Amino acid sequence: MIKLIYPDTKVDTEKAKQILAEISQNPMGGWFNLPNNYDKEEFARIKEAAKKINNNSKYLVCIGIGGSYLGHRALIEALDPVSPTKVLYAGNSLSSISLKKVLDELGDNDFSVNVISKSGTTTEPAIAFRIFKEKLIKKYGEEEANRRIFATTDASKGALHDEAVTKGYTRFVVPDSIGGRYSVFTAVGLLPLAVAGVNIDNLLAGAKEFTKDLENPAESAILRYAFTRHDFRESGHDVEVLSSFEPNLMYFNEWWKQLFGESEGKDGKGIFPASVICTTDLHSMGQYLQEGRRNIFETVIKVVNSEIDFTIPKLDDDCDGLGYLEGKSLNHVNEQALEATVSAHKTGNIPVIKIEIPDISEKSFGALIYFFETACAVSAILGKVNPFNQPGVEEYKREMFKLLGKTGF
Amino acid sequence: MIKLIYPDTKVDTEKAKQILAEISQNPMGGWFNLPNNYDKEEFARIKEAAKKINNNSKYLVCIGIGGSYLGHRALIEALDPVSPTKVLYAGNSLSSISLKKVLDELGDNDFSVNVISKSGTTTEPAIAFRIFKEKLIKKYGEEEANRRIFATTDASKGALHDEAVTKGYTRFVVPDSIGGRYSVFTAVGLLPLAVAGVNIDNLLAGAKEFTKDLENPAESAILRYAFTRHDFRESGHDVEVLSSFEPNLMYFNEWWKQLFGESEGKDGKGIFPASVICTTDLHSMGQYLQEGRRNIFETVIKVVNSEIDFTIPKLDDDCDGLGYLEGKSLNHVNEQALEATVSAHKTGNIPVIKIEIPDISEKSFGALIYFFETACAVSAILGKVNPFNQPGVEEYKREMFKLLGKTGF
Repeated sequence: MIKLIYPDTKVDTEKAKQILAEISQNPMGGWFNLPNNYDKEEFARIKEAAKKINNNSKYLVCIGIGGSYLGHRALIEALDPVSPTKVLYAGNSLSSISLKKVLDELGDNDFSVNVISKSGTTTEPAIAFRIFKEKLIKKYGEEEANRRIFATTDASKGALHDEAVTKGYTRFVVPDSIGGRYSVFTAVGLLPLAVAGVNIDNLLAGAKEFTKDLENPAESAILRYAFTRHDFRESGHDVEVLSSFEPNLMYFNEWWKQLFGESEGKDGKGIFPASVICTTDLHSMGQYLQEGRRNIFETVIKVVNSEIDFTIPKLDDDCDGLGYLEGKSLNHVNEQALEATVSAHKTGNIPVIKIEIPDISEKSFGALIYFFETACAVSAILGKVNPFNQPGVEEYKREMFKLLGKTGF
Repeated sequence: MIKLIYPDTKVDTEKAKQILAEISQNPMGGWFNLPNNYDKEEFARIKEAAKKINNNSKYLVCIGIGGSYLGHRALIEALDPVSPTKVLYAGNSLSSISLKKVLDELGDNDFSVNVISKSGTTTEPAIAFRIFKEKLIKKYGEEEANRRIFATTDASKGALHDEAVTKGYTRFVVPDSIGGRYSVFTAVGLLPLAVAGVNIDNLLAGAKEFTKDLENPAESAILRYAFTRHDFRESGHDVEVLSSFEPNLMYFNEWWKQLFGESEGKDGKGIFPASVICTTDLHSMGQYLQEGRRNIFETVIKVVNSEIDFTIPKLDDDCDGLGYLEGKSLNHVNEQALEATVSAHKTGNIPVIKIEIPDISEKSFGALIYFFETACAVSAILGKVNPFNQPGVEEYKREMFKLLGKTGF
């Protein structure tokens, strides 16, 4: 499944076992055993809701921010599935321009809304929910509008929970034991994914299969990645660049940045998470990576097999000097570009971690998500920070409430 | 026009004048006087070509990478203009998945191609050009295909220049004195921009107007930005995060990262350029910015006026606790979020540079591009690196040619 090709870091297996036990017992560690132990009844209800939305909606407006947004978007962009319903995103900023774009695309087409918020009071999604709820009611009347609202929220309390109960929205649960950035295998991610046409059975099956990676700690890709990152951090490498050679992984990079940035960036510590898409960015950030400050390490994701491919066409006159590539596969060229980049960056004194995933499929990405989630938690604990809180996120909110004149601030 | 609100850094005016003279006389400094001194005849031909493409093409496939790609894409995404012709991008990676997406969208619709390459032999665009040229010939026959190819390339030599002359493609020039990342006001950027419906007269007028910023060095926003960055660099701040509060500026951030990363990231030096879109990323990288390692400074772009706006709707029961915002403008809330973020980050010991642009318009972005280009060159020279070369970009190419079996490598 997911392989860590190099470097060949030694795992401190005793320490690793201790950290894994700690994660498993942590009140916020619910995601750790999730692939083996999810709510089958809710899972069936998610698939049923997705079918209903596919039948009556050209669009699903997903309202959420941060962990309620990035995971499903990352997977939808990467897997590019086929569905009668297109997922649109709202409530992930306060931009009027972005909101107008969604409303323009929506037009007068049939739509449903999935509002995703543990509390229901986070400013960005709450504003968007008011706007799209008003639009639903105007278009369908209140009764049908309520049938078209799917609320993913706390199981038993909070503003959105209470509203959903009162109005009779279909409800799904954000578990107490799983923080936003670890939540993509809960209803937070699964409903939008199922609506978008992602096979969520295969997604979870891939994650479940990959939990076996931890059975032999010394050989574990997850643990070797976590310990390698820790070694690099200790040797003064404080910027990690995640590189992919598929532009479709752009939002996956964003998901990864939230996961590591929020988990590790605290107490004045943390590896700064950055990302590039190659070969695009080799003609941009490539210069810095090759010859800039040497405090960077790079983690490269290689996709081993790709179904889609092209053959480089023949030209009679070879006017562009590409003759040596005629008849070759584009994927072959992309693969050689990846190997060349790794080699060039090593020459430039950038330590490289190379990860391989078999293909761009639900199973592989299920495993990849689990790989990074678990490695991130282990890595944060190795760096002596709490992987599951995000106290700094509240600071701008407090300042904003003050400026906006909210009572009590 | 563009204002630097704070900090109030003192400019060493003698040094600044000396650096500006150096830039102006540099063989690669052609972009510096461009807004006052561009080729009016070619400019008129660009507008004529754009009109022709608008008349006969539903799509323009722009083939280019790095500086031949990022500038126009950044402006098209930011300005979101209206046009009968949609610009698609190819040749900016080696991904078959991305290529297939472009071909799928193109379908059997009418299209033209703008191939942008100084040499014509850069691997990524050269491969894409072979593929789209073949498609053009298949659809239109060779004669009409040649009429639908617009080549932006060297004025007098190189593979693409020679091919364009032989086949009779319409030609535009990548000047010798302007590197890719400084080239958006040349035909490299202007043809795609004009086709996409951007008013290129206003774009250049905005840049021209803003060249006056340099007349009084002590008050210049450009120079104050450059000297501030230099001070921050000297005090150990080696990561700069560019923040915008409009998701439409995502590709502008990418353009900015190329500009600064390629200009400064060399000789083991350089500020690592990163970016966020707020408030989206306040729920992601926000935690790191607030409480992670303190080697970061932040440059915030505030858009002062925005035409598009929404009013936050009223709810009878205020179930989400947003009542205090009812009837308020969404732009007002976004603005307060920006001020709150700046305040929170200052509290978290992140030095902040605040830039204001009047609005999202051609004139403002013309000025903003000129602001960053000039500040970047000054800043690089203050940091004692050459702003106009990118020797590190060749390294992965050499390795790739070797792996692909190109003769001579």
